Amino acid sequence: MINKLVDKIKKLNAPIVVGLDPMLAYVPDHVKAKAFAEKGETLEGAAEAIWQFNKAIVDATWDLIPAVKPQIAMYEQFGVPGLMAFHKTVEYCKAKDLVVIGDVKRGDIGSTSEAYAVGHLGKVAVGSRSYYGFDEDFVTVNPYLGSDGVKPFIKVAKEENKGMFILVKTSNPSSGEFQDRLIDGRPLYEWVGEKVAEWGEEHMGSCGYSYVGAVVGATYPEMGKILRKVMPKTYILVPGYGAQGGKAKDLVHYFNEDGLGAIVNSSRGIIAAYKQDAYAKFGPENFADASRQAVIDMQKDIASVL
Amino acid sequence: MINKLVDKIKKLNAPIVVGLDPMLAYVPDHVKAKAFAEKGETLEGAAEAIWQFNKAIVDATWDLIPAVKPQIAMYEQFGVPGLMAFHKTVEYCKAKDLVVIGDVKRGDIGSTSEAYAVGHLGKVAVGSRSYYGFDEDFVTVNPYLGSDGVKPFIKVAKEENKGMFILVKTSNPSSGEFQDRLIDGRPLYEWVGEKVAEWGEEHMGSCGYSYVGAVVGATYPEMGKILRKVMPKTYILVPGYGAQGGKAKDLVHYFNEDGLGAIVNSSRGIIAAYKQDAYAKFGPENFADASRQAVIDMQKDIASVL
Repeated sequence: MINKLVDKIKKLNAPIVVGLDPMLAYVPDHVKAKAFAEKGETLEGAAEAIWQFNKAIVDATWDLIPAVKPQIAMYEQFGVPGLMAFHKTVEYCKAKDLVVIGDVKRGDIGSTSEAYAVGHLGKVAVGSRSYYGFDEDFVTVNPYLGSDGVKPFIKVAKEENKGMFILVKTSNPSSGEFQDRLIDGRPLYEWVGEKVAEWGEEHMGSCGYSYVGAVVGATYPEMGKILRKVMPKTYILVPGYGAQGGKAKDLVHYFNEDGLGAIVNSSRGIIAAYKQDAYAKFGPENFADASRQAVIDMQKDIASVL
Repeated sequence: MINKLVDKIKKLNAPIVVGLDPMLAYVPDHVKAKAFAEKGETLEGAAEAIWQFNKAIVDATWDLIPAVKPQIAMYEQFGVPGLMAFHKTVEYCKAKDLVVIGDVKRGDIGSTSEAYAVGHLGKVAVGSRSYYGFDEDFVTVNPYLGSDGVKPFIKVAKEENKGMFILVKTSNPSSGEFQDRLIDGRPLYEWVGEKVAEWGEEHMGSCGYSYVGAVVGATYPEMGKILRKVMPKTYILVPGYGAQGGKAKDLVHYFNEDGLGAIVNSSRGIIAAYKQDAYAKFGPENFADASRQAVIDMQKDIASVL
């Protein structure tokens, strides 16, 4: 799956991923009205609204992008109906041949991490049969519990030719509270980065990059520069571009000299593009066309600095 | 809710929580056979089996225990049907007046943590209405992202009189890989513990303990002793007793002199008691009676050292 991701990035010249994080506030009124008319102002109605919103955006952008990253929290907030919309979104994107990164940030003690890995990447046994639960291609994983919280994801990923991105340095303002603390003179995120590189050796793709990637926020480019060197064979998923403040010129540090090694996420900046002045001319009715234009602009913006 | 938890612990003289972590391997064959006959060897069949298993254990133990802790990964591995069983389990336990700790270990950047908080503790707005998603009383939270990953949980918990337990020192063998690393001469878990105490001041219960608790594994009693002092008003959720190796004599360090301040989890040791030699006489047919006896024995074991 890392090979497929890299192939698609090269072919489209687009190291970008669209974050499908559908807050109800981003969904245009006419989409909500239709969903609520069908299913009521209920959790089911909300789930229908975000699913229709996602579908329109995927239909308008799939040929330009290698991957999508649905943030499961935005679905989980609507309970079981929300998670049905998450599952439907994953299936739809895979049918469009998109690589799906489930942004789930799971991680627990060994046996529990294995259950998460099975549920999101692998198959669970039920009697004599087995089934995929959510079936993403990659997931994000929290490293706080150490190796035995991470290795079950690697085990299942190997069985399935799938992968993961492990949180190293997150994009949020307070990420430094623990991640930047110095241990023997080096920040915690560097120690985590070293571990990610080590774990990555266990599951390498033929493209030269590992199935075990890292998350490093676009909002901390100087740290990105160092982490790029600490983890040379690691694909870096870079959140924080656009709405969170990360700029294209800063992204160059996250890439290797081969022009590969990083994939940049934008969520709000793409899916709620129609709400920005730059794309207001599209109007809420044409929100998906605004998203397409925002993808084209993002692709150009990043290509201009690489 | 922390007041309710403390009241129930005192009344029952039982600082214990039963971990409802139903691996299919724990479910007796006759329960699985019935569920598969009704719903097939499918995800729905598996979900039915774990729900019936949970229900029987709750029916046999609810009058002895203050709280349950369903581990969501064990449900999530069965996809959407599994999460329906999780929701049903939460609702059933609440109807039995049990305090429900959703062991979800979520945590993300601010806006995303808010979505998790809303989905698990609070109400989500849909048009002019609002709904509970999963509606646990407490959740577990991962601190790796720092304050702005935690504060949204505190905000929602305040609105709902609910709470959380934040991972400080986890029970697994490799928890020390990052958590034990020294920062200015003190391990990371102590710095996290200090932050938990600070966050806790924002949401105190009238019982003298905070709604913001901590997770500290029973497998590291010397660290528990120190963390007890670092976080005097923090309730400590203690996993790792029993099957993971934690002993009752070690638990005394997690409690304050008032005999309160900690609640000890056992999962496998209770729900799969019938598989242990000590309870084999019950037989798989009477698995729930075995669980009841295991709860009684655990209560005595812990009472004997306090």
